Parts: sequence; structure tokens; C-alpha cells
Amino acid sequence: MKKHHALETVPGFKIAAVQANIRDWSEPRNDLALIAADAPASAAGVFTKNQIAAAPVKIDKKHLKASGGVARAILVNAGVANACTGDEGKKNARENIARIAAGLGAPAEQILVASTGVIGRQLPMERMNTGIDQALGSLGKVKPGAFAKAIMTTDLRPKEASLLLAGDDGVILSGTCKGSGMMAPNMATMLAFVLTNAAVSPKALAAALSEVVDSTFNMVTVDGDTSTNDSLFVMASGTAGECIDKPSGKRFDRFLAGLYEISMSLSRQIAADGEGATKLVNVRVTGAKRRKDAAAAARAIAQSPLVKTAMFGNDPNWGRIVCALGYSDAKVDESEVSVSLCGRPMFEKGTPLPFDAAELSGLMKAKEIDLDVDLGLGGGEALAMTCDFSYDYVKINADYTT
Amino acid sequence: MKKHHALETVPGFKIAAVQANIRDWSEPRNDLALIAADAPASAAGVFTKNQIAAAPVKIDKKHLKASGGVARAILVNAGVANACTGDEGKKNARENIARIAAGLGAPAEQILVASTGVIGRQLPMERMNTGIDQALGSLGKVKPGAFAKAIMTTDLRPKEASLLLAGDDGVILSGTCKGSGMMAPNMATMLAFVLTNAAVSPKALAAALSEVVDSTFNMVTVDGDTSTNDSLFVMASGTAGECIDKPSGKRFDRFLAGLYEISMSLSRQIAADGEGATKLVNVRVTGAKRRKDAAAAARAIAQSPLVKTAMFGNDPNWGRIVCALGYSDAKVDESEVSVSLCGRPMFEKGTPLPFDAAELSGLMKAKEIDLDVDLGLGGGEALAMTCDFSYDYVKINADYTT
Repeated sequence: MKKHHALETVPGFKIAAVQANIRDWSEPRNDLALIAADAPASAAGVFTKNQIAAAPVKIDKKHLKASGGVARAILVNAGVANACTGDEGKKNARENIARIAAGLGAPAEQILVASTGVIGRQLPMERMNTGIDQALGSLGKVKPGAFAKAIMTTDLRPKEASLLLAGDDGVILSGTCKGSGMMAPNMATMLAFVLTNAAVSPKALAAALSEVVDSTFNMVTVDGDTSTNDSLFVMASGTAGECIDKPSGKRFDRFLAGLYEISMSLSRQIAADGEGATKLVNVRVTGAKRRKDAAAAARAIAQSPLVKTAMFGNDPNWGRIVCALGYSDAKVDESEVSVSLCGRPMFEKGTPLPFDAAELSGLMKAKEIDLDVDLGLGGGEALAMTCDFSYDYVKINADYTT
Repeated sequence: MKKHHALETVPGFKIAAVQANIRDWSEPRNDLALIAADAPASAAGVFTKNQIAAAPVKIDKKHLKASGGVARAILVNAGVANACTGDEGKKNARENIARIAAGLGAPAEQILVASTGVIGRQLPMERMNTGIDQALGSLGKVKPGAFAKAIMTTDLRPKEASLLLAGDDGVILSGTCKGSGMMAPNMATMLAFVLTNAAVSPKALAAALSEVVDSTFNMVTVDGDTSTNDSLFVMASGTAGECIDKPSGKRFDRFLAGLYEISMSLSRQIAADGEGATKLVNVRVTGAKRRKDAAAAARAIAQSPLVKTAMFGNDPNWGRIVCALGYSDAKVDESEVSVSLCGRPMFEKGTPLPFDAAELSGLMKAKEIDLDVDLGLGGGEALAMTCDFSYDYVKINADYTT
């Protein structure tokens, strides 16, 4: 990825970001953002598997179905999650949608919404209305990067990734997302948005998204909590190139590779900026009977508070890795298991190896470290991305609402 | 429970606790302990479900099977877990067993072993041999409470519970256990030992243990990690009363109630003394379709780092409770869910209620707090016990082996 193509620059879309004061933030900031397509665009989404889904998630699923994967806009707010808000919460989300639909002259089913923030609070509707009107009036007038900043909650850094697709004249993919706590596979509390000017049918777009998400966003974990609001959206304006109709063929594969690259970059950024994180931890499991086992093992290790605190403390306590492996849903045979930490073998086919603890502890101080586990049973493999577990995670989360 | 009957005073058993220097402890302490029955005793055990079980666990399971639930002794060491130690680890455990069997004149299959400590290190066998000889030579010569102290690792407090069974002349149950991190349902890293002078057949003893464990020790969680070494043992010397042969009848039920009371007390002590804990948190789920759903929901809530950090911060962020409920394996219907925190209703049948955050935050400062969730779907209920998640949890676990 060389030149950065900000979300705000993708042809066929206009962006707005405004200060709606959804919460009493410690300093003034934008907290409401709008993506609007110049014309109906192909759209696809993946949403939380939490049974207690937020009002926006419930509505978006219905809208994407009703519209056949076509959307004009996505409204996002930070500060209030609009989850566990009962009938009033649904009514509020629908009112926001109606206001945007009226402003853009689009059917309601082509408007999507996403919220992130505190659960159990109602949206401040007067402020939302004012904010929406401001956003509609300022579409296309924001600086590059404004959207990424407006959707942040406890994130320390805005997260962006973009690329120019090689071979396809002028096709850009650009994405942004917010983390950064309450993140777990299926999915992280995470709102992610990818825009492209590629011409892709709704069917091909949904297929590409579903193929990419399992090995990227769904392999990120911060604390194992799966949020009520997780949502990942892709919209394609279709202003560049010939249309990719079906989920196959060379041009589809090229688009898929681009979407994978963007998703992987954003996933790594989420893990690296997990609440309180001091380092990115890559947990790679190979040699599993099936990919499913590898994924289960990698997630269990990446989610273990004991593994994650050891990573924070630069403590080469590899036993905790094996322990987490053992209680995961993956099929394991202790006598076939091998473990490496920062490239150094620690445990080989069920037997512990001698190692230099001081040297290893030094290696673990890197900003990115690798845990490699070989199950020795087959060809299945998976990579989970996480961060260490520090004092600051506790600090950030011990006093969030009050 | 009035008068305390220490483990060391249960008729039919003799206890030893010695300083074997298994690890370089920061200050001198006993770290090897032995329970020896005067004659073969009924014995039952429940062990970790982790696929990577420690050598002692693997051996104990075989021994209890081979002996038909009869044992003469249990050897316990702190400091080294003897897990992930390959063939050498198994050989070492068998050597310890042989030494005790020879000392007591008992068959090897009647000797059980338990280890707790760092994974992946071999037991220091010279020190073990010296320690075992000292223990054999000092059986019955320890002060009450010595066993509970010798098995501690990061525990802050020794954990003991005992009772005199009403109605059964002179039947005592006395138990002790160690926590306190890496604790999760099925089971906490936990070694627990209950001794009784009751006369109970191996079959009835195993039945009682299995009935009690699911609603006590298996409902404790500290960090969701299920250890390689978790073991719970019960031994009955049979010096008091008529023999309880079958797992039914009035006398069995009375014994069962006593075992439940001891197990519940020890479980609460483990949760309250979880690593870094500042308070005990009771998560009670009622109204589930089945008990299984209630247990899954209670565990998910009790294990959520976000719920636990909120409890530490006295932050009445009840939305995290509902969120954890939603991603649990329990069947839930948002519009039927109600939640109370410290006895105050926060969420009723899917709708958030107004509450006084400052008052509630004050209530949350208690040493023991209650989270009550009603699923509104049936009569199933369960109680999970956990603690809050503090800076000290991170501190304790960030630098354990080095």
C-alpha cells in the first residue's frame, strides 16, 4: 500500500462528520458521521452473533434483505450503543433513518445505521436530529480522515487502510474501523466500513465479504466479549470498471484479494490498539486436523487472560499457551504439540525444551510478537490477532459509564 | 458452622507438611504435604477437563479406577505443576508414588498425587525425595491449618471449611483448597481436599461428589482459564457411624448436604480470594428454560472481563451483563430479560429503568455483591461465583515465572 486513499476520496461517495454531542465527551469532538452514495450502491454487511443485538443491527439486517443488497447511506454515531433500549430504541433508530431517507430522497430500506457506545441508554433524539441535518448539509465537505476520527470511542488511533487495485483501472478500496475493547471473534466490538468505486453486484459483494471476514475480523480478539453492535459494511459505488457480476473469475479474485488485504490491515490495527495494549500478538496455529480446530485453538490462546498478562509482563510462560490449547474446542494430542515463542522452540512434541528466559524476555519486548503452535495432526491452520493485557485495560474499563 | 474441625483433626487420617524447596520461594514455607489414612479409605476424585492434563491427573484417574475407589494417601506439592513435562514428568510422579507406597506399605494404586505451580518444569526429584521422607517421618505431627498453608500458591488466605454432621454421631467433614488464578468452570485451578471420618462406600462417595461438584466448584470462575491440574479429592476413613452403602436414603442425603455445604463454602472462598480480587460477585440466573441454560448464562457473565472490571470500578454498567448474556450459549429473549444489580432493578423485560448511578456505585463498594438476571422463560436457575478484575490481577500474572 503506497499512496493512501482516504475513505473521503472514494469516487461515488460523499462523507460528513459533525459534532452532535451524543455524550459529554471530555473534549469537543465529532461523534456523528454519514456516508452517502451519489446513487444506489451495492452493499453488504456482517453483524454480531450476540443474541442481544442492538436496534441498528436488527434494522440493518432487515434493510439489506428488503433492498436486495442496495444502499444509499450509512449513519454512524459514537457515545450511545442503542442496545438494550427496548421499543423506544427501535423507534429512535427508525426516526433517524426516516430523516436521512427524506434528506436524500431515498427509500428507508436503503439507509443503514450503526451505533457504538454505552449499552442501555437512549439516543438523545434532539441532538441526533440536529446532527443529522448538519451532516446532510455538509456532505462532501470534510477533510480526509474525519470519518475515521468521528467513530472512535476508546480507540487511541484512527484506523485506516486503502489500496489501488492493480490491473483494474482506477479501482480503489478504502476502509476504516473503530475498536477497541469488547472485542472477540464473531465479532470484535467493532464498526468497520469499506468503500470502493468498483462495480460489483450485490451478490458478488456479499460473497466476497463473507469469504474474507472469517480469516480477518473474526480472528481478532481483545477480551473475548462479543458486543451487541458489531457491524462490518462494504459499499461499492460502481463508478470504475466493468461490473463483477458473479463471485468467481479473475476479476472477482482480484477484488477479493484487495478486500482481504484491507480487512487484514484493519484487523491488525484493531488488535494492536486494543484497550491498554502495549503490543500486537499473532497466534498462529498450524498442523490441525481441520481449519476449524486451528481457529478454535488460536482463539482460545489469544483470548486467555493468563497468556495475555504474560505477554504484557514479557514472561516466557509458554505453559499457559499449552493450557489454553488444552481447554479449547480443538482436537489436540499433547505428545504431538510443539510451541515456539518469538521464533524460539519451547516445547517439542510434548516435551519441554531448555531455553534462556532472560534472552526470551528481552525478545518479548518487541511491539509485535509471534506465538506459533503446531498441533502435528494435519494441514489445518489459522491466525488469531490479539494484544497483551495490561493495567490500562483494567483502568479503561473499570470506570466507563460513570 | 460453629467449631472448626481442621483437616488435621479428622479421625482416621494423619497429615504432614514440610519445606521441600520445590521453588525458590520469596520466603521459607512448606510446599509439600501428605494426607495418609491409617487404613485403606474410600476415595473419589473429580479432575480437570483440559485435554492437556498434568501427569498427576492422568495417574490419579487410573489409580482410582484400578483400586475401585480406595486410597491410602495423597501427596501434594506446590511450585511445579508437573504438566507438559512429557515422559520424564510421568516417571517422576510414579517415583514419588512408589516412595510413599513403600513407606506406608500400600499398593501404588492406592496412592494419589496432586501438583500445582508452573507448567512445563520438571519436579526437582532430589528435593522431592528428601521432602517425601520427611513427610512420612512427621505424619500426625503438624499443627491444625498446616496443610491448607502448604498447598497455597498465589492465594492470599488459606481456605478451610468444616462441620459436624447433625444427627450422625461424631461424623466430621473437613475440607481445604487452594485457588486462586486460572480458575474457570470445569474446573478452577484448584486443588481441593475433603476428609471425613464417615463410613461411606466408594460408590456412594463418588456419587455424592459428582452430585455436589456441578453446582459448587464448577460454578467458580476467576479468569476463564481451565487449568491442567485441577483436582478435587474426597476421602472417607469410616471410623464413625454405620456405613452408607448406596447413593440414596436419609443418611446419604444428610452426608450429601454436608458435602455440599463444605464445597459451597470453599467455592465462595476461592472466588473471594481470586487473584487481585477486591470483592466476591454472585451471579444468579433464574427463569431459564433449563438449568443448563442458567448455568451457561451465569458463567458467561461471571467470566466477562468487561463485567468484572466494571465491578472493580463500582461502575453500574449493567449493559455489559446483558451483552455477556447475549453471547452465552443460553437461549435468551431480550424482551423477557430483567436484570438487578445489588438488589436494584436496572432492566425489566427488555426495557432499561432509570436509576441513581451515584447511589448504586456506593452500594457496589461492598465486599460481596449480587447480580441477578431473570430470563423469564422457565424455572431453571444457577449461581456462579466470581470476583472483580483489578490492577492486581494483571500485576500478579504479568510476571509469574521469571
